[in-house]
Amino acid sequence: MSQSPRSESKSAGKQIQGPRGTRDLYPAEAARRRWLLERWREVSVRHGFEEVDGPTFEESDLYAVKSGEGILGELFQAFSGKSPDEVEQVKATGRGPFALRPEFTPTLARMYAARAAGLPKPCKWFMAGPFFRAERPQRGRLREFLQWNCDVLGLDIAPEKWHAEDAEGRAEVAESKARTDAEVIACCVAYLESTGLTPADVQVRVGSRTVVDGLLDDMRVPGEKHAEVFTLLDRRAKLGGEAFAEAASGLLDVAAFDARREGLESALKAGGRADAGFDSASLMRLFASLDEMGLLSWCTPDLSIARGLAYYTGTVFEVIADGERAVAGGGRYDNLVELFGGPRTPAVGFAMGDVVLSLLLQDKGLMPSDEELMGLVGQRPQVFVLSNGTDEADAQVRRVVAVLRRGDLGLHVRHSYKATKNIGKLLKEASGWDARFAVIVESPGEASVKNLQTGQQWEGRVAINALAERLAASLGK
Amino acid sequence: MSQSPRSESKSAGKQIQGPRGTRDLYPAEAARRRWLLERWREVSVRHGFEEVDGPTFEESDLYAVKSGEGILGELFQAFSGKSPDEVEQVKATGRGPFALRPEFTPTLARMYAARAAGLPKPCKWFMAGPFFRAERPQRGRLREFLQWNCDVLGLDIAPEKWHAEDAEGRAEVAESKARTDAEVIACCVAYLESTGLTPADVQVRVGSRTVVDGLLDDMRVPGEKHAEVFTLLDRRAKLGGEAFAEAASGLLDVAAFDARREGLESALKAGGRADAGFDSASLMRLFASLDEMGLLSWCTPDLSIARGLAYYTGTVFEVIADGERAVAGGGRYDNLVELFGGPRTPAVGFAMGDVVLSLLLQDKGLMPSDEELMGLVGQRPQVFVLSNGTDEADAQVRRVVAVLRRGDLGLHVRHSYKATKNIGKLLKEASGWDARFAVIVESPGEASVKNLQTGQQWEGRVAINALAERLAASLGK
Repeated sequence: MSQSPRSESKSAGKQIQGPRGTRDLYPAEAARRRWLLERWREVSVRHGFEEVDGPTFEESDLYAVKSGEGILGELFQAFSGKSPDEVEQVKATGRGPFALRPEFTPTLARMYAARAAGLPKPCKWFMAGPFFRAERPQRGRLREFLQWNCDVLGLDIAPEKWHAEDAEGRAEVAESKARTDAEVIACCVAYLESTGLTPADVQVRVGSRTVVDGLLDDMRVPGEKHAEVFTLLDRRAKLGGEAFAEAASGLLDVAAFDARREGLESALKAGGRADAGFDSASLMRLFASLDEMGLLSWCTPDLSIARGLAYYTGTVFEVIADGERAVAGGGRYDNLVELFGGPRTPAVGFAMGDVVLSLLLQDKGLMPSDEELMGLVGQRPQVFVLSNGTDEADAQVRRVVAVLRRGDLGLHVRHSYKATKNIGKLLKEASGWDARFAVIVESPGEASVKNLQTGQQWEGRVAINALAERLAASLGK
Repeated sequence: MSQSPRSESKSAGKQIQGPRGTRDLYPAEAARRRWLLERWREVSVRHGFEEVDGPTFEESDLYAVKSGEGILGELFQAFSGKSPDEVEQVKATGRGPFALRPEFTPTLARMYAARAAGLPKPCKWFMAGPFFRAERPQRGRLREFLQWNCDVLGLDIAPEKWHAEDAEGRAEVAESKARTDAEVIACCVAYLESTGLTPADVQVRVGSRTVVDGLLDDMRVPGEKHAEVFTLLDRRAKLGGEAFAEAASGLLDVAAFDARREGLESALKAGGRADAGFDSASLMRLFASLDEMGLLSWCTPDLSIARGLAYYTGTVFEVIADGERAVAGGGRYDNLVELFGGPRTPAVGFAMGDVVLSLLLQDKGLMPSDEELMGLVGQRPQVFVLSNGTDEADAQVRRVVAVLRRGDLGLHVRHSYKATKNIGKLLKEASGWDARFAVIVESPGEASVKNLQTGQQWEGRVAINALAERLAASLGK
């Protein structure tokens, strides 16, 4: 989608532009948005997720609980200009009581917490809508963008078992978490596959904070140093090999870490269950589940994935295109619902934005053309009405259009706004709209019908009051 | 839709609520929203409108140009917490550089103005999405609500004729405006009709600023007093007959005004073209157009409709339910595009909110139940997969689910998260979801299929790798 146009007008009026980093959606761009949203929705629904949504703005406090500092620094603040209290607060502090939502997970956790007892276990929710970040607009980043969220709250075992402490119970929980993680990843992959992307284009890179903790423990890195190591690992690609090695010296034997990490990653990639010498069971289980669901070719184990430590408690994953562009990301956040006042609830989910995704689909030639989109989102007219050119028939066109559009069978009907009476030109306009049928009004009571896909004219004439039914039947309505 | 719940939780975490006047959409509420939005969209598309949208927030200046004072006083202000300039501005002035959009027309006019030369003439646009007003939440009012907008920019005659000054040209323009006004009203009525509402429930009350001006001129009310009369007329119902008469004394002969107003209204209602003795031609033409489109039973002439004088230039209308509740409103605003820096462009449109509409549909028993909605928005599962109870089949359920959900034929598939192996209970769960087919895994390679609508079991068993195609065919996919 293109950003707001900055074209100049010749008029005397005041030209105002859309805010930087936002988009004006003219019909082609709006059809593209609809195509994205509908595909996200369609894939979510067929995977058994139910649609939910929250407010566009939330109390700012909601994000203070658990969102990362990156997000907190990029909030669009909001306040009611009608409330003297709020205006005073903003003047005094420079902070508004509300924020435009920068992500969905806090809203999701708040909503689940408020009604946990009455919700299904597990609870599978998705949403797709606008989000806002006050960052500097650049390629791949906008201040208002779309995001798709899919989350599973709870596990596929009985709730009284979710926090079992004995060995058998813990193994059952671990199996259930692996299945649930895989279920969420399956939905993400199904969408990617539905766009025409292949495992050669995108890979879900899957890591785990707890597994890396286990490896670091096994290498005798003190627990209080783990966070520092994660931060370094996260910045490894940016730092480059030399600077990374220097920064890690004294903290970590990088060669030994990499050797053991790569050993585990290879075993996982092969669907194997090699003994890594440290607690890697959760990832072993997850890759076994991914294998069971036929997803192994889409997934790569990658212990350097370290996203959002403040947030995630186990599995973390990122969808990476061409080895560098992050299309989606997610992971397990087992503590968040409780932090928002709900019962302890294991949870896992992911979010996918539209901006990087759209660039990727365009680059790969997988974004439908404007013409294709109009068909894909159901905006192709079913009927185009014209007159045979007589004054008597001319006077009926608008009435026939109104009749066909109304009622239970209501058809998508267009007519020409041009002054021409040239039937050839009008039929050309109908074809330009990619209409299915042309209805030619022949007299106040009758019309002839032409199928514009086959070029065939219907035999005889059809009474105007029987038209809607005949056309609807032909259209399979 | 219900407002945010304020339920208490027993947990130790911090319970945060959604902002007052906003809604949390759990699955049933989200399905209701989708049903509303999809119906709005479907009716717009079949009337030849194309979908557009703008940013959720705009520069505050956009609304200073032409929005009424009521709206300006109710803006949610916004600013980037990351921008020191914006924080300083807010601290100094108590006003943000941005506002959450309170209405769509300014965005529409800005977008049309920016690309007018390249857009179709006329240009028919619709949108449906969230809007924001910082008013006190109350029945029928929320701070975040949905609104549907339909607008026609331009006329159905050649653009060089839009501003004709000679008598013949002016008549042609007036005819075209009447047809265009009727086209917009037709779309609004088609939606109302599609919900099951009847002309006995709702009426489009149609007035005209210019016609009332003509009547006041004819009654020798000085031009500079017209605005005062309009304000009074707008408040007439609130004031009551006596207070109104008192306030109007010296300004207007109320009895004479009413007699002439009612005379015209009766003639219009009958589709007649009586000579009102003042310039009522535009409303005569509009009612003739409404008659031509079969809409007369839905429309009532009402010269006391005086909405948004700062905004509208001719026809104005309100959809009123049960004689009092305003469901939608609109009118002609021929000067707005030019004010936003575009070429002079006649325009007409309307907006309908979801809050009063939903209350009305509920009161009339026309709002589908939660169960019906899940079917209406396509969230009914097509397939429910279960096992025949053997360990061998149990182990295949998740794989079969994954296979059926993927690929071009991707089906909406669910399975049980319950531990039971009781086939009867599982089939009951499938029926509870209103699934179309139950797939019972019999062995790693085969399944039997039951049509849950007819209760019939398919003959023989189906190979798992042929299942997707067989089911899709049965579902007409």
